Amino acid sequence: MAFRTSLDMEDDCLNMSPLGLEAQDKLGTVCIFGTGDFGRSLGLRLLQAGYLVVYGSRNPENSSLLPKGAKVLSHKEAAEYSQVIFLAVHREHYDFLSDISDQIEGKVLVDISNNLKKNQYSESNAEYLSKLMPNANVVKGFNTVSAWALQSGNLDGSRQVSVCGNDYKSKRIVMEIAQHLGLIALDYGSLRAANELENYPLQLFPLWRLPLCIATCLTAAFFCYCVIRDVVYAYATEGKDVSFRILISLANHIFPVVSLIMLAMCYLPGVIAAFLQLYNGTKYKRFPAWLDKWMLCRKQLGLVALGFAFLHVLYSLIIPVRYYVRHRQNSYLAKQIKNNETIIFQNFYAWRNDSYLSAGILGFGFYLLLGITSLPSVSNTVNWREFRFVQSKLGYVTLLLCTLHTFLYGWDMFCHAHNYRWFLPPTYMFSLIVPCIVLILKVILVIPCVDTAVMRIRQGFERHAEKTPYAKKTSIGGTLAL
Amino acid sequence: MAFRTSLDMEDDCLNMSPLGLEAQDKLGTVCIFGTGDFGRSLGLRLLQAGYLVVYGSRNPENSSLLPKGAKVLSHKEAAEYSQVIFLAVHREHYDFLSDISDQIEGKVLVDISNNLKKNQYSESNAEYLSKLMPNANVVKGFNTVSAWALQSGNLDGSRQVSVCGNDYKSKRIVMEIAQHLGLIALDYGSLRAANELENYPLQLFPLWRLPLCIATCLTAAFFCYCVIRDVVYAYATEGKDVSFRILISLANHIFPVVSLIMLAMCYLPGVIAAFLQLYNGTKYKRFPAWLDKWMLCRKQLGLVALGFAFLHVLYSLIIPVRYYVRHRQNSYLAKQIKNNETIIFQNFYAWRNDSYLSAGILGFGFYLLLGITSLPSVSNTVNWREFRFVQSKLGYVTLLLCTLHTFLYGWDMFCHAHNYRWFLPPTYMFSLIVPCIVLILKVILVIPCVDTAVMRIRQGFERHAEKTPYAKKTSIGGTLAL
Amino acid sequence: MAFRTSLDMEDDCLNMSPLGLEAQDKLGTVCIFGTGDFGRSLGLRLLQAGYLVVYGSRNPENSSLLPKGAKVLSHKEAAEYSQVIFLAVHREHYDFLSDISDQIEGKVLVDISNNLKKNQYSESNAEYLSKLMPNANVVKGFNTVSAWALQSGNLDGSRQVSVCGNDYKSKRIVMEIAQHLGLIALDYGSLRAANELENYPLQLFPLWRLPLCIATCLTAAFFCYCVIRDVVYAYATEGKDVSFRILISLANHIFPVVSLIMLAMCYLPGVIAAFLQLYNGTKYKRFPAWLDKWMLCRKQLGLVALGFAFLHVLYSLIIPVRYYVRHRQNSYLAKQIKNNETIIFQNFYAWRNDSYLSAGILGFGFYLLLGITSLPSVSNTVNWREFRFVQSKLGYVTLLLCTLHTFLYGWDMFCHAHNYRWFLPPTYMFSLIVPCIVLILKVILVIPCVDTAVMRIRQGFERHAEKTPYAKKTSIGGTLAL
Repeated sequence: MAFRTSLDMEDDCLNMSPLGLEAQDKLGTVCIFGTGDFGRSLGLRLLQAGYLVVYGSRNPENSSLLPKGAKVLSHKEAAEYSQVIFLAVHREHYDFLSDISDQIEGKVLVDISNNLKKNQYSESNAEYLSKLMPNANVVKGFNTVSAWALQSGNLDGSRQVSVCGNDYKSKRIVMEIAQHLGLIALDYGSLRAANELENYPLQLFPLWRLPLCIATCLTAAFFCYCVIRDVVYAYATEGKDVSFRILISLANHIFPVVSLIMLAMCYLPGVIAAFLQLYNGTKYKRFPAWLDKWMLCRKQLGLVALGFAFLHVLYSLIIPVRYYVRHRQNSYLAKQIKNNETIIFQNFYAWRNDSYLSAGILGFGFYLLLGITSLPSVSNTVNWREFRFVQSKLGYVTLLLCTLHTFLYGWDMFCHAHNYRWFLPPTYMFSLIVPCIVLILKVILVIPCVDTAVMRIRQGFERHAEKTPYAKKTSIGGTLAL
Repeated sequence: MAFRTSLDMEDDCLNMSPLGLEAQDKLGTVCIFGTGDFGRSLGLRLLQAGYLVVYGSRNPENSSLLPKGAKVLSHKEAAEYSQVIFLAVHREHYDFLSDISDQIEGKVLVDISNNLKKNQYSESNAEYLSKLMPNANVVKGFNTVSAWALQSGNLDGSRQVSVCGNDYKSKRIVMEIAQHLGLIALDYGSLRAANELENYPLQLFPLWRLPLCIATCLTAAFFCYCVIRDVVYAYATEGKDVSFRILISLANHIFPVVSLIMLAMCYLPGVIAAFLQLYNGTKYKRFPAWLDKWMLCRKQLGLVALGFAFLHVLYSLIIPVRYYVRHRQNSYLAKQIKNNETIIFQNFYAWRNDSYLSAGILGFGFYLLLGITSLPSVSNTVNWREFRFVQSKLGYVTLLLCTLHTFLYGWDMFCHAHNYRWFLPPTYMFSLIVPCIVLILKVILVIPCVDTAVMRIRQGFERHAEKTPYAKKTSIGGTLAL
Repeated sequence: MAFRTSLDMEDDCLNMSPLGLEAQDKLGTVCIFGTGDFGRSLGLRLLQAGYLVVYGSRNPENSSLLPKGAKVLSHKEAAEYSQVIFLAVHREHYDFLSDISDQIEGKVLVDISNNLKKNQYSESNAEYLSKLMPNANVVKGFNTVSAWALQSGNLDGSRQVSVCGNDYKSKRIVMEIAQHLGLIALDYGSLRAANELENYPLQLFPLWRLPLCIATCLTAAFFCYCVIRDVVYAYATEGKDVSFRILISLANHIFPVVSLIMLAMCYLPGVIAAFLQLYNGTKYKRFPAWLDKWMLCRKQLGLVALGFAFLHVLYSLIIPVRYYVRHRQNSYLAKQIKNNETIIFQNFYAWRNDSYLSAGILGFGFYLLLGITSLPSVSNTVNWREFRFVQSKLGYVTLLLCTLHTFLYGWDMFCHAHNYRWFLPPTYMFSLIVPCIVLILKVILVIPCVDTAVMRIRQGFERHAEKTPYAKKTSIGGTLAL
């Protein structure tokens, strides 16, 4: 029948608990196999919430460490007491269950195990368990909560407990237990999702890998380039040792360049996607895999870029306190005074200098704004339309300002021969390539006729009828950036 | 009867699904009318969660794009399969339902539609639908979730699904479905709230409108003022072109002024409210509408002001790298050296200069603290008392420090005639008016006798018996700022 | 029986509400005792959610202020209407209930009261109430929500409602009501937890007390030290008044020192814990109380330290705009020019100066990263492994960089006699003690043989068999920092 709800787990839970009834024990008895850290923490928490707890253990005598009020029995005995059995043992030891398959029949078996590395086994522990115990209702859950958080009640980080399983009723029972422990239970679908749940606690910033790797490569490349162009060049030609420039001067050349390129890379895939859709004449055609992957890590790309921009700001702000800078200025001034030169003020330089500074400041301001709105708690409070307004409209303003900042900084540098040491152009020129491409493509896309064409495709219009069922996600994803 | 709970939707959900039973289908069958993006995404998600999905479509043949495992039938047939029908079609096409009113009778009809602009129709789509189908239980919900988020499972932004409807049982069914999709369902009351839910996805920072508008007006006004007083004046009197000062010098005059004024405006309404309550002798008298509106956007006012303060900080920090500044200092120094003047160090200037700088820094530090605590996730973790402590106590410290900063900066400027170019006083003087008013009024309010009077009123005491039932909210809101 | 669920509150809730039935009133009738702010706000909210509301009041006539649609009756009458009674009166007035104990028998009595100060009474209000009314099912809850938030619906801050009580069914009823009001209900266990819930709204940053106190003491101590060493010394020996240095120069000596010391103090307890475990040869031995306390406020320690670091950055960045600094540089330069000295550029100084600046900048960058990841909403999105990676790995990198920054700043200062004014060493030397200790101990701990020993203990291995049941939490907590 349809829409079974909490009520109907009732009937098969009528095992009178023989452990004596108090006010709380209406919540019933929970059985825990395994007396490790997690087993103990879970037991303590369950007792606090008003459950009766029975531990199943190999050697029930050794119960010194278990929370007060919990019974310790053999696995066989313990299993009989309760409708729900938490399995807090390693996958290797699951086989002991086969001896007590009769006691476990039809009961809820909660697999809370984690592995040591991702995809350690061909199939997830929970699925393996359900094969092992076909007559039990296996539910995967609680493995994302740390024993420490569970016990100390310090759950700020991990209030959400994802639960998955094939039998809906069993899942529901486990979710209710989670709720009674003060956790927020989320239904994660069927047991097929168990693998995902088991991998979750093992992953280490998967989405950040690519952006960080890009950042590292770019930084390394530009570092070598700058060292050759500045330090080596100075030494080779004038025999001057300017190696000290590496620490700040070069860093402050590299960071802004990397930052601007990566910022532009956040918006490039969106533009490419739009052109692809225009070319395909439909949004129901799958994007190439690399584009999908690229799109999914745009947020991280942007945040890494923001980090570099932040460093650039700090490095620029400390310029005047640097010994090198002060010395250069002083000796310059001293020279002028000695030679009795009068220093003429050039309005033009003032304009240029100020305008590139303020473009940079405003750009950074907007940039920070983007960063703040990408904080989970902030993006939760804005609706879809507001989110897109900030991330795309403001995003392009930021890109524009930062590109302008670089342009004004470089100005006419590129047309002075002496800037091409060993025919190597100054770094800032490289940083302008990607942003300019993005901005030009974007300009093309906002031309009314093009814009309407894209919109029509986005609204489902198709020029010719090639459709593939799995194309949607990517295409919808594509709209994100525009 | 009272306190009907999840259980009692059971009885009217006993439609055996004839689509063949698997493990998951205990969750039952869901029908979706409409095969657009949202319909498809929702269907996919439902299938993943273990529901059976039937699509109702005008032309059931064209089902190429629908997720695998979903049946596609005519509206009539589809409706018979399920107790719950998601209506993923535009309001304009609702009328087709009238043909199948028999199949829909007594069923749960979920209106997930959104409009193109706010209050597009006199009545909300859901209410219109419930008038159209009086014998169906209309529930509004899911319209705040984006198809993309739903399908990609990337729900960070939008896990919360608000649901409203008149029939409690139907609402409950829809909320349970939401929970099975891994969403957090919130009960939003009766169908009267549908309009609000439908407007939500369309709004664009409604609370930020007023503060941003105020900021823009102030900035524009002060900009004109400064241009006249600095640039035009210099040109008219000495024929000097100092237009370059617009970009940074003027900006750095305007931003702090606007920031300080807006910060003060966050605390002004609270003080006014207190005096109004004192005057009325009760807290149960409605505040004027403008005061209510003002109070509701104090947070946004403060954050915009923080943004301006941040820009002011950056603009001030880059002063020493500016070409103009360096040139002025150098030529000044050169002059002194030429004329053989000895530069005397004045303790007094050092004191004044340092004190105004440090007042500014500390003020900005506290300011940032206020900003951080106004992040949703942070303000969630503090209780009411802590929140008020930060926002009012620390808030006034911030205001005090920033005002002090401005005072010390201006110091005795105002008593030098040459600062009144064309009789126009320097900008910073304007920025002091509002803060001083707020601080003075606040000082009056903290005088013991006044303070106790306000407290007694806040605790419900009334001097004379004029009461209006709706006055509470505003009065309680009033306490926010104190 | 076990696993009673929402369903079974049904049977004892079958009181036909005689107030006339509408669409919504399926939700049933709720009774509120007390017509204060909270009573009114709660009533309004309940009505909006579709409940029928009856107020119990001493003088039912005076109902002018109550929300429209609510009935007002005597306590006796009101109690009869509903299964659930919200008690919105002060603990002092609970006794009036004894008169109507018959009406209340077996009903759900929700204690939403708060006290004026923590642990005002020996036992919590809710427990006192349940003693007073033994035949009613007392539930504690809703006291953490503010009347204003409840009424204005502005629940960003406080959507979570913690509920505790001994009778599970009653607790469940109250939690469902909370959910219908659009709140997220959390089960907080038995009535024993009521005291905690009642103290929550009264606490004022309990975890921040210790760190802030440490910060204040350190600052005060170093301030005195610096004043003597710099200001007093200068006045006593050379009769120079350099008091102006207090505001910025001294502040900028003190802040970084305090910041670095406190940052090191975040990591010291973790290291101590590891050595304690090594010494004990087990992780199941309780840590001394001071260590536990210390560990629990590490996050706050770190954030306070970050605040000081931030001030240090600002104070350092404004150095070049200071009158004092500019004057010193100018007169120095003037002197040189007069005496016709040529200013020689020393590569060594450039290296040292730049390296200490960049170490500082990078350190601050990582520091900010730590701060951002400690934002609740951010730490929610990372799993346990990621959180520990950031907080420990990155944490130590930060500590290392900041210590390096200080070292390079100080460099060989300590071996110049003139830096020991009155035999007082420069401040920065003090700041290095704690960090060096932490880093050295940490280095010892990462030596393979030591590391494995610690790991084995962490995995539950015990050298000798001394066990105490309560040792786990602390030991698990201990692992946090490593």
